[in-house]
Amino acid sequence: MKKVVENIIKDDVRLSDLSLPADLKRLTIPQCKRLCREIRSMLINTVSKNGGHLASNLGSVELTVAIHRVFNSPQDKIIWDVGHQSYTHKILTGRLDRFNTLRKENGISGFPRPSESVHDAFIGGHSSTSISVACGIAEAMKMQGKDANYAVAVVGDGALTGGMVYEGLNNAGKDRKNLIVILNDNNMSISKNVGALSKYLTTIRANQGYLKTKSAVEKALSKTPVVGKPITKALKVSKDKIKGVIYPDTTIFDDLGFIYLGPVDGHDIAAIEMVLNTAKVYRHPVVVHVNTIKGKGYLPAEKNPGEYHGISKFDVLTGNPEVSGEDSYSTVFGKELVRLAWKDKRICAITAAMKYGTGLQFFASEFKDRFFDVGIAEQHAVTFSAGLASMGLIPVFAVYSSFLQRSYDQLIHDAAICNTHIVLGIDRAGIVGEDGETHQGIFDIPMLTTIPNTAIYSPSNYEELKLCLYDAIYKEKGIACVRYPRGKDTSNFDKNKLNTNYTLTTNNKGHDSDILLISYGRIYNNFREVVYMLAGENIYADTLKLTKIYPYDKKIIDIAADYSKIFFFEECEASGGISQHFSANLLEKGYNGKFVKVAINGFVEQASMENALHKLKLDIESMYMTIKKNI
Amino acid sequence: MKKVVENIIKDDVRLSDLSLPADLKRLTIPQCKRLCREIRSMLINTVSKNGGHLASNLGSVELTVAIHRVFNSPQDKIIWDVGHQSYTHKILTGRLDRFNTLRKENGISGFPRPSESVHDAFIGGHSSTSISVACGIAEAMKMQGKDANYAVAVVGDGALTGGMVYEGLNNAGKDRKNLIVILNDNNMSISKNVGALSKYLTTIRANQGYLKTKSAVEKALSKTPVVGKPITKALKVSKDKIKGVIYPDTTIFDDLGFIYLGPVDGHDIAAIEMVLNTAKVYRHPVVVHVNTIKGKGYLPAEKNPGEYHGISKFDVLTGNPEVSGEDSYSTVFGKELVRLAWKDKRICAITAAMKYGTGLQFFASEFKDRFFDVGIAEQHAVTFSAGLASMGLIPVFAVYSSFLQRSYDQLIHDAAICNTHIVLGIDRAGIVGEDGETHQGIFDIPMLTTIPNTAIYSPSNYEELKLCLYDAIYKEKGIACVRYPRGKDTSNFDKNKLNTNYTLTTNNKGHDSDILLISYGRIYNNFREVVYMLAGENIYADTLKLTKIYPYDKKIIDIAADYSKIFFFEECEASGGISQHFSANLLEKGYNGKFVKVAINGFVEQASMENALHKLKLDIESMYMTIKKNI
Repeated sequence: MKKVVENIIKDDVRLSDLSLPADLKRLTIPQCKRLCREIRSMLINTVSKNGGHLASNLGSVELTVAIHRVFNSPQDKIIWDVGHQSYTHKILTGRLDRFNTLRKENGISGFPRPSESVHDAFIGGHSSTSISVACGIAEAMKMQGKDANYAVAVVGDGALTGGMVYEGLNNAGKDRKNLIVILNDNNMSISKNVGALSKYLTTIRANQGYLKTKSAVEKALSKTPVVGKPITKALKVSKDKIKGVIYPDTTIFDDLGFIYLGPVDGHDIAAIEMVLNTAKVYRHPVVVHVNTIKGKGYLPAEKNPGEYHGISKFDVLTGNPEVSGEDSYSTVFGKELVRLAWKDKRICAITAAMKYGTGLQFFASEFKDRFFDVGIAEQHAVTFSAGLASMGLIPVFAVYSSFLQRSYDQLIHDAAICNTHIVLGIDRAGIVGEDGETHQGIFDIPMLTTIPNTAIYSPSNYEELKLCLYDAIYKEKGIACVRYPRGKDTSNFDKNKLNTNYTLTTNNKGHDSDILLISYGRIYNNFREVVYMLAGENIYADTLKLTKIYPYDKKIIDIAADYSKIFFFEECEASGGISQHFSANLLEKGYNGKFVKVAINGFVEQASMENALHKLKLDIESMYMTIKKNI
Repeated sequence: MKKVVENIIKDDVRLSDLSLPADLKRLTIPQCKRLCREIRSMLINTVSKNGGHLASNLGSVELTVAIHRVFNSPQDKIIWDVGHQSYTHKILTGRLDRFNTLRKENGISGFPRPSESVHDAFIGGHSSTSISVACGIAEAMKMQGKDANYAVAVVGDGALTGGMVYEGLNNAGKDRKNLIVILNDNNMSISKNVGALSKYLTTIRANQGYLKTKSAVEKALSKTPVVGKPITKALKVSKDKIKGVIYPDTTIFDDLGFIYLGPVDGHDIAAIEMVLNTAKVYRHPVVVHVNTIKGKGYLPAEKNPGEYHGISKFDVLTGNPEVSGEDSYSTVFGKELVRLAWKDKRICAITAAMKYGTGLQFFASEFKDRFFDVGIAEQHAVTFSAGLASMGLIPVFAVYSSFLQRSYDQLIHDAAICNTHIVLGIDRAGIVGEDGETHQGIFDIPMLTTIPNTAIYSPSNYEELKLCLYDAIYKEKGIACVRYPRGKDTSNFDKNKLNTNYTLTTNNKGHDSDILLISYGRIYNNFREVVYMLAGENIYADTLKLTKIYPYDKKIIDIAADYSKIFFFEECEASGGISQHFSANLLEKGYNGKFVKVAINGFVEQASMENALHKLKLDIESMYMTIKKNI
C-alpha cells in the first residue's frame, strides 16, 4: 500500500495510504469511520503492549479526526490539556510508523512534546493548563498578524476542577477572536468526577441539544454561500437564535464571556465538524461542548474506564491486565492508613482525583465521611487540609510528587507559616519511567526542603513505610511528608532492625573501612549488592541509610566525617537535593575527605524505570563503577 | 470612659466603652453607625502614621460590624481572604488598645494571624485561599458535632480572579451546611479589576436587588416566630421565590451549587444583617454578594482607591502621601523595560494585578497591545507567558517574589521542560518589612534554583538592574529572572565598572588579605562600610559581588578557594540559598578553609526593613561583628 498520488482515495482507505494530516480533509465520512476503526485497533494493540492511557484515547478518536479535518495544524495550534489523550493526534500527524514506540525509550512520548513534532504545539502532562497556553498563542497570533489561524484548547471535564482553567477562562474573553475551547466531556476525570461543576455539566449534557445544533447550523450555513465575512455576519445576527435552539439557558461559559455551543455527540464526526466550523466563523471565544464515552469501542475499557485510564500491558482478547494482586507502595500506604484511622477518628484522607493511584480506595470505603476527593485541585487540597488541621484534625493528603508542585505556595502560606500539622503521602517519588519528563517525581525534595517547618521521610521498604507514616502522623508537627516510589518493594534487607531515623551498617568484617555509601529510599537497597561486589575485590564499604531524610539527624555528619571517602546517591534533582544539604554541613564541619555525589541533573526522559536509573547512574552496576573510579 | 457594667449602652457610645465583640450585638443601628465613624477615624489616623492598607478597610467597616453582630466569633470562624481588610475586625476583637502598633515590630499584624488572637481563625496574606480554608473548617465542625457554628469566608472580588477560589467553590457545595461565602465586591482588586468575571459581577451589581431582598426576607421572617428549624423549613420552601425576587436569573454561583443572595448595600448595616441572617438559616452553602465602596468615608481614598490600597504614611488633612517622586527599583525596572520595548516589538509585559506595584504602568500606557494584566492569577500569568514565548515573543512577567510561589509547577512544566524563554521581573525580593511573614521575598531563590534551565540575576543598584534586564531578555534562554528589592537604591559604589557576572574588589592595599566577603543584591552595598570599619583595625578583606547569582560562574569557586576565610551573606532563606550551593561546590573543590554563611532561617516577622535586617544579622554592624568573631 503506497501513498496515493492520484486524486482518488479508495473506499477501503487505510492510514498508511494517506498523506497525513492533509489528506484527512479529502475523505468522506464513511472513509473517516473506517479510519477510526483502524486507529482504535492500533490504540488497543499498542497500549496492550506498551502500557499507557487507553480509555481517554479511545474516547477521543472521532473528535481528533474532526479537529484535524476542520483545522490546519500546524498553522492552527491544537493544545491538548493533560495531553494523555493525544495518541490519535500523534497517529494523524506524522507518527504513524513510530506509534509502536509509544512510551518506549527514544520512542514517541505519551504526551504532546514540541521537540517531537511541529504538530505538538505545546507540552502537556499536568492538568488545566491548555486555556492559558491558548490565550498566549492566540494573542501572539494577533500581534504577528496571523490571527486568521486558531488556537484550539482541548480540555477534559476532569481538568475543569483545576483552578487554573478559570484563570484562563477569565482572561480568554478579552478580544481573542481566534480562541476555541473544546470541552471533551466524558463525565469522568481520572477517578469519578467530583464537585459542583461535574453535576452542572451533567445537567447540560442531559440536554440532547446536539441534534438541534446540527439543523440549526445547517440552517444558518444555508443562508450564505461561502465561509468568510458574510457568514460571520449572518451567524452573529442569528447568534442568539442559534444559541436558543442549542441550549435554552445561559451557561457558566456564557457568564465568562464565551459563546457556548453544544453539547454535540463526540462520536459523530459530521456533527462535531459542523459545530467546529460554526465556532470558527464566530470570531469570538467559543466553548464547544463535546460528549464522549471513555473507552469507546473496547468493551472492557468502556465498562471500567477508571481501570483503563492509565494501564500497564494487558491481554487484548480478555482485557485482563498484566497485574498480580500484589501490594505496591501505594496500597501498603493506603492499607496502613486505614489501620491507623480505625484507632484515631481525627485522621482524614484527601486525594486530588487519584483515589486508586494513591491507594486510598481502602480508606474511602471504610471511612466515607473522612475521605475527600477534591478533583484535580492540589492547591485546594493543601489549604483544605490546613483548614481541617486548624480544627485539630489530622489530614493526610496522598498525592503524586509531580502534582504536589502545584501546591508550593499553599504549603508555605497556609500550612508552614503557622506550623500547621498536615501529612503528605508523596507517591510516585523518584523515577516513574515511561511517563517521562512531566511525571518524574524528582522535585519534591528540593521543593519541600525550602519550606520551614517541614519534615521528610523516605522509607526503603514496606515495613519502613508503615513506621514512617506513624511518625509523620504522631511525632511531627508542621508539614510531615512520607515519600515512596511507584511500584513494588523488591528489597530483601533484614527488616527486624528498622527505625525511622538512620541506619549505619558496617561491612568491614575486621577490615578497616574508610568508604561510606549513603542513600535513602528504594535505591538504598542496591547497596547490598554493591557492597558484596566491592568486598569481592577486597574493598570494604560501610553504608548509611537515611530514613528521616530532612531535617536529618546531625549525628550523621559526625559519623560520615570519619570516613575519608563518602559516596552519596540519591534519586532526586541534585540542585536542592539532600546531598547538597549534606555537603554544606560537611564543609561547615571542616571535612577534608572526598565527597562524591550522584544525583539527577535536569529533566529525565521516558524509559523503563530500570533503564532510566541506569542512565542516571543510580543502578547497582553504575554505583559500583562510580565507587571503583573514585577510590 | 470605663466599660459599661450596667445593661444600658449610651447613645454616644464609644469603642472603649464596650466589651467587644460581644456588646456589638446589644447596639442599635444608630449606635453602630456612630462606632463606624469612630473606627474610620481610627483607621485613617493609624494608617496615616504606620502605613498599611487603607482603602479596602474603609470599604469594609459596616460589613465587619454586621458580621460580628450576626456571627459569634470565635465559635463561628471568620476567614478573611488576602486578609489586608481585617483591620476593623482586629479593632472589634480585642486589639483596640494595641491598634496603634499596627504593622510595627512586635505590634499587631496587618493580616489575620492566629497566634495573635483566637478571633483570627486562619492566616491570610495571599489571595483566594479563604473558601478552601472555610471548607476544611466547616467539614471539621461537622465531624466534631459543632456544625451549629459557621465557617464564613470573606472574599473580595479581586480574589475571584485567582483559580483557587474555583477549586474551593467547586468543592464547597458538598453537604457543608454551615459554610457562608461573603463576596465583598468593591469592583476593584488591587489595580482595576480585569477579566470576564469582573464584567459579569458588574452586571449583577447593577441590579439593585438589595432593597427587594430586604422586603422579601422580612416577609419570610414574619412567617415564623423564632430562628431555628421552622424558619429553615419556611425559607427552604420559599427559597426559589425569594431568589426570584432578589435576582431573577441564576448566577454563576447557583451553577456551582450555592444559594446566591444579593447584592446588598455594603454600607447599610441593617440590610447586611438581614441578608446574613437569611444566609444562616438556609443551612446550605450560600454566597452573599455585598457591594462596598473602596475608600468609603475618606475622600482622597474614595477618589483614588488604587493609590490608597497599600500606602506609606500620609498627611490626613491633605491626603498627601509621604512620597517623593523619586525612582524605586520597580519604576527603574518599568522604565527600562519601556526603553527596550520601543526597540523590540516582541517584548510583552504581564502583571498579576500589580501594574503600579511592579512599575509596569509606564509600559501599559506606551504599549497597550503588548501589556496584559491577568488579575490575581500567577499560574495563568506564567503559562500565558510560555504560550506567548512558544510563538517567538519575549514575555516579561513582573511579579512579587512571594506571589511567584504560586507558579512553581507552571515554571517547571510549562516553561522549563521545553526550555521556553520567559523573563521574570521579581519585585519585593528580600525583606519587605512591615507586611511580615506572608510577604517576605525570601523563597524565590531556593524555589527557582530547583528548576532546570533557569538563570537568576540579582543587581545591587539601578544601573546594574538595567544591565541585568537586558541580559535576561537577550542573553539567556529558558527562565531568566531578575530579582530586586522593595524601595530605593541607596548604594554609592562606582558604577562605571559594572557587569552582570561577578566583581572582585581587592581592598588589601599592599596587605595580604585572606578574608573574602561574598554577597549579592542590595546588602552587598553594606560591604563598603564593613570593609572600611575592618581596615580601621588593620583587618583587610576583599569582596566578591555576584550579579548573575545562578548558575554562577564556576571561576568564583577558584577565586574564593584561595582565601582561608570566606563570609557569605545573603538576604534569602538559607535552605536552598546560593550560599548552600556555593558551599557544596567548595567541598567538591576540596576547600580547607573556614566558610561562614549568614542567611535567613525560617519565617521573618514584621518590623521595619532596617530592624528586620539587623535581627537577621545582615546589616552593616552585624556583618562587621560576624567577621570579627570569626577571624
